Amino acid sequence: IVSRLPSVGTTVFTHMSMLAAQHGAVNLGQGFPDFACDARLVDAVTEAMRAGFNQYPMMTGVPALRQAIAAKIAATYGRQYDADTEITVTAGATQALTTAILCCVHPGDEVIIIEPAYDSYLPTVELAGGVPVLVQMTLTDACYAIPWDRIAAAVTPKTRLLVINTPHNPTGTVLRQADIDALSAIVQGTGILILADEVYEHMVYDGARHESMSRHAVLAARSFVVSSFGKTFHVTGWKIGYVAAPAPLMAEFRKVHQYNVFSTNAPMQHGIAAYMADPRPWRELPDFYQRKRDLFRTGLAASRFELLPADGTYFQCVRYGAISDLPEVAFAEWLAAEIKVAAIPVAPFYRGGVESRVVRFCFAKQDDTLRLALDRLARV
Amino acid sequence: IVSRLPSVGTTVFTHMSMLAAQHGAVNLGQGFPDFACDARLVDAVTEAMRAGFNQYPMMTGVPALRQAIAAKIAATYGRQYDADTEITVTAGATQALTTAILCCVHPGDEVIIIEPAYDSYLPTVELAGGVPVLVQMTLTDACYAIPWDRIAAAVTPKTRLLVINTPHNPTGTVLRQADIDALSAIVQGTGILILADEVYEHMVYDGARHESMSRHAVLAARSFVVSSFGKTFHVTGWKIGYVAAPAPLMAEFRKVHQYNVFSTNAPMQHGIAAYMADPRPWRELPDFYQRKRDLFRTGLAASRFELLPADGTYFQCVRYGAISDLPEVAFAEWLAAEIKVAAIPVAPFYRGGVESRVVRFCFAKQDDTLRLALDRLARV
Ligand SMILES: CSCCC(=O)C(=O)O
Ligand SMILES: CSCCC(=O)C(=O)O
Repeated sequence: IVSRLPSVGTTVFTHMSMLAAQHGAVNLGQGFPDFACDARLVDAVTEAMRAGFNQYPMMTGVPALRQAIAAKIAATYGRQYDADTEITVTAGATQALTTAILCCVHPGDEVIIIEPAYDSYLPTVELAGGVPVLVQMTLTDACYAIPWDRIAAAVTPKTRLLVINTPHNPTGTVLRQADIDALSAIVQGTGILILADEVYEHMVYDGARHESMSRHAVLAARSFVVSSFGKTFHVTGWKIGYVAAPAPLMAEFRKVHQYNVFSTNAPMQHGIAAYMADPRPWRELPDFYQRKRDLFRTGLAASRFELLPADGTYFQCVRYGAISDLPEVAFAEWLAAEIKVAAIPVAPFYRGGVESRVVRFCFAKQDDTLRLALDRLARV
Repeated sequence: IVSRLPSVGTTVFTHMSMLAAQHGAVNLGQGFPDFACDARLVDAVTEAMRAGFNQYPMMTGVPALRQAIAAKIAATYGRQYDADTEITVTAGATQALTTAILCCVHPGDEVIIIEPAYDSYLPTVELAGGVPVLVQMTLTDACYAIPWDRIAAAVTPKTRLLVINTPHNPTGTVLRQADIDALSAIVQGTGILILADEVYEHMVYDGARHESMSRHAVLAARSFVVSSFGKTFHVTGWKIGYVAAPAPLMAEFRKVHQYNVFSTNAPMQHGIAAYMADPRPWRELPDFYQRKRDLFRTGLAASRFELLPADGTYFQCVRYGAISDLPEVAFAEWLAAEIKVAAIPVAPFYRGGVESRVVRFCFAKQDDTLRLALDRLARV
């Protein structure tokens, strides 16, 4: 067998989760909560199974769930997607991202990816025969920033797609109105599509608002907007996400979707639809996670790690240059093995592994878990 | 947006299910049971959710489930797959098929597909940049047969993959030892891989045995063997399947799998693993469905439909040439609208829609559903 993805190994998330288990480390690596989801959500899925919703749902998703998603987007971002033709439920956000790339990237098409980048974008573009065009974020002493001038310079007549991720994993960077303006100026008048990974949409802090592509007419008209119930409802293992896009884009998405997974787990969809009658779970999420972020940042302030901003997501990036000269993967391995706290090195989010002496901690954890990790990290 | 799959529309399954709903027809079209799954299976999933198995499982699948799958294959087909390196749990069998194709078919590679063919194979090969090489089954008065001589003649140095589907959807054809011998002779000494769609593995009737690729060393060594819990446990809407393959093939499968869906629904996996402690559900399946098949065939014998063999799957193909001159899709639409029984035309399982005046009924239904359909079909 000749590999289609010769340079790919196991993801850094799997690698660090296995190391965490092996060393009995507090796992602040892979992004997932260590607390229970709402029992009412579990009950809603149980009810759906008992009611007999166990056979193929519609390929596009359960209608009640698509309607709930459309209503949520309309209420949150002021854009009305048609539940029948512009929303599709997916087997997690990753499947949505991959399907979107496969449905619009033709061999030779260029796809602009901003690094550090979530690890699935680049290999999926290559699988589609596309050409990844990588633009690195600027890392100053103060923060990561998106270099719109260099993105504009990377555009060519072959640019088919631009991948946007806000709030941004791993850096926690959140797009602001100025970013939206710059992005709009770049794509306006071109045929460039946008793939918007917005799975952390409800984790934006300090009163800022999430600049969803769906808020902005110019951008919404050309965007696949992807989100994740796993992130929003604390059930990353359920693997239910969705994509919203204008009907012509969605028609192409569904052509690939129906042959990729055909459809998505039915009882989970019914359960989530019922659970969404109450908007409080996602409205309360910013405060819920901001408190955890602040607890974690306050604790780390006493350590030798240097905090970078954490404006969104449930991740906190830190510089460790004052502590160690190890490259990032080696440092993260050492941290897991010796300090018994697992983190995610940021280098693997760059092709070729750009070194910035930064690792990422996930603070979607019980307060006690965070305190235990902070105790250990304070000793570094 | 320029389509990656310009010739693709909505699948025939979605089309006929929508027509069935619209006309209040008995839906014997899309293949799914209309009876409840085992309540113990639902309880096992509920328990898994309550026990907190709601976060990312391992990318490869929950270990207990991979072990249960390996044990089932070993007990059923006498081959030992390594649960860690040779079994991966997928978001349904379709995702397994698509991922297998994407992981090994390079642009320009030829993939032999036997028609009539399940509708996902061909567009997925095209998405991978592969070249589908189509070989039609022979339809005599008596049955569909696989023309191994023409398959052998279709092999070229560019042949990368051969898609095998046994028991075969839509025809119900089951591979016998003679087919295995012919297939083995074709692939031996070549680098051709096999993608084996065996989702109906436990629906083989009249005492025959399922010739899984995993039974036969020469074939197992080059096969991705795909199966589906949806089919075996009457939960098509749960979208949990798996693939078994030798470690070098599985390593490539997982590279694509991890970027396609990353992982598969955790509580469903835990629930199924617990449920698999008892082998009776799949051991009793042949008798369970054979009785339904016989009920349906006996009922149809009095009608003007001509029965083709139904040696496996939960499908019964019939000729309707004595009833109507309509092409298959039009006949199926008429049957749904006027007779109020939905079937699946077989023509869409061929590129270009080869007409044989054959439609497919699904008999995975309650006896009362089958009797109601038979009453209506007798009047045609
Ligand atoms: C899909 S596994 C990785 C989870 C995640 O998004 C992250 O940790 O960055
Ligand atoms: C994935 S929907 C189609 C179900 C099925 O396998 C069939 O009816 O042939």
